Amino acid sequence: MPNASARDLVKTAGDSIGVVVRGAENPFFAPVISAIEQAVEDAGYTLSIRQIKAGEDELAAAARLSRAKKLKGLILLGGRFDYTKEDVAPIDIPFVCCTFTNDFGTVESDAYSSVSIDDREEARRAVRYLTECGHRRIAILMDSASDRSISELRYKGYLDALAEAGIEPDPDLLIESVEFNMAGAYEKAGRFAASGKQFTALFAIADTFAIAAMKAFHDKGLRIPEDYSVLSIDGINMSLYTIPTLTALVQPKEELGREAVKILTDVLAGGAHRHIRLQTTLREGGTVRKIS
Amino acid sequence: MPNASARDLVKTAGDSIGVVVRGAENPFFAPVISAIEQAVEDAGYTLSIRQIKAGEDELAAAARLSRAKKLKGLILLGGRFDYTKEDVAPIDIPFVCCTFTNDFGTVESDAYSSVSIDDREEARRAVRYLTECGHRRIAILMDSASDRSISELRYKGYLDALAEAGIEPDPDLLIESVEFNMAGAYEKAGRFAASGKQFTALFAIADTFAIAAMKAFHDKGLRIPEDYSVLSIDGINMSLYTIPTLTALVQPKEELGREAVKILTDVLAGGAHRHIRLQTTLREGGTVRKIS
Repeated sequence: MPNASARDLVKTAGDSIGVVVRGAENPFFAPVISAIEQAVEDAGYTLSIRQIKAGEDELAAAARLSRAKKLKGLILLGGRFDYTKEDVAPIDIPFVCCTFTNDFGTVESDAYSSVSIDDREEARRAVRYLTECGHRRIAILMDSASDRSISELRYKGYLDALAEAGIEPDPDLLIESVEFNMAGAYEKAGRFAASGKQFTALFAIADTFAIAAMKAFHDKGLRIPEDYSVLSIDGINMSLYTIPTLTALVQPKEELGREAVKILTDVLAGGAHRHIRLQTTLREGGTVRKIS
Repeated sequence: MPNASARDLVKTAGDSIGVVVRGAENPFFAPVISAIEQAVEDAGYTLSIRQIKAGEDELAAAARLSRAKKLKGLILLGGRFDYTKEDVAPIDIPFVCCTFTNDFGTVESDAYSSVSIDDREEARRAVRYLTECGHRRIAILMDSASDRSISELRYKGYLDALAEAGIEPDPDLLIESVEFNMAGAYEKAGRFAASGKQFTALFAIADTFAIAAMKAFHDKGLRIPEDYSVLSIDGINMSLYTIPTLTALVQPKEELGREAVKILTDVLAGGAHRHIRLQTTLREGGTVRKIS
């Protein structure tokens, strides 16, 4: 039997942790949510989940949920990367940003916690893998190069890798999908493939984008990886079943969820806020071709 | 301005509706949940969501959630098809089965509500589409032929369609995946394709199974639809991006969610329980070949 921890001493039965999921239709979140649920139950808390659409205001939803459910702590699963102190003021309980950070924001780092991958660094690793396979004309499919969010960070990592390999970035190879959904990515990638622009590889900032692009290329009569290589970040379950299997940097989805709960329960027991960066694992599928 | 409805008169601010999602990693549920959330908000209720694993006990989870959150009503999103009166006794508030029915159970139909497709009838329609395309050797990929659940219902619909077309069912063409996950379906479908059994089409009882089978066939060097046709029921978003696009009977996912909330709020306002069957829509993708 483990000793009663500090956490058990301060917690009363029925204490509740809230999770606000922004973009509930994103298949990336499902295993993270499952891991959070299990960890919250194991820690003896009850759980309140609120799911909102990708464009909605997670802080307002979190503040409402916190009041309605008298929460002790909050996990934000997906959200903006540019919170100000004023933005988070309505959240008067400890919170953890899970799968994202506040890289473009101004909230003091000791006022909240986070657990995520290092988006810029992992994107650099992804694109470096492509340059090491001999690719020099590498397109990027993203939401936007200047969204002060995940897309901008991964774009910066893309630029880092190009610089490292001595490749001049070509603005012609930027594909901004904007809507952040598969239909938009499909359309933009298809139009790009038909434009005649010269490229040999596509870095998609998310698996869903990569899967949509693979379909768009196929529908234009192009083959993966013979005509174009495709690589992305995330490693959702479905990416194991694309044809060919998607080559991806796989996020530690369950670990992200478990760590978020661990940090939050530590903070609720009096610990300090902290920021954890987890690493991805390269899964070599069949979508990247060596051309060197 | 609409008149105040009976619902508004009996409801007090903060009244809460609960949703227990069984099998939260099933991508089919995401748009249903989103529709439920929107409809619950529009109806002026608050929402409590509890997600459990596919094999877990949704009734126990629902009873706990109901007590913890003092719910007025419940939506079960996914669950067993064989409730007895004793099974549901712990649920002392009105509930709606959403996306499933109680076809194998004994609960009186006026004691609960449901909204779903007619699984047996839709499976019959699906397989009839295959027989009309000239297929007579049709395999079925399912959970189990006797699970007293969705798999057994859709299997019966498969048998109905074969009987209609004068085709003797062949036990050799039953593929029981059992685990009800993509990894299991991939493995069983691959082994089946390698077994040398003669068939021209596969009816998968869910899109996720179909996508896993397409991958398994591809990995054995087989082509869809040249070597085998594939058809399924569900129409998840991802099935638009398979290569080729999956031919599927598409469930009205958002409507299932909206109807569940409408029925429940009507019952909470004093209305009688009711059972609604919605229809699927055939989406012709590229996975079924005419061979007649």
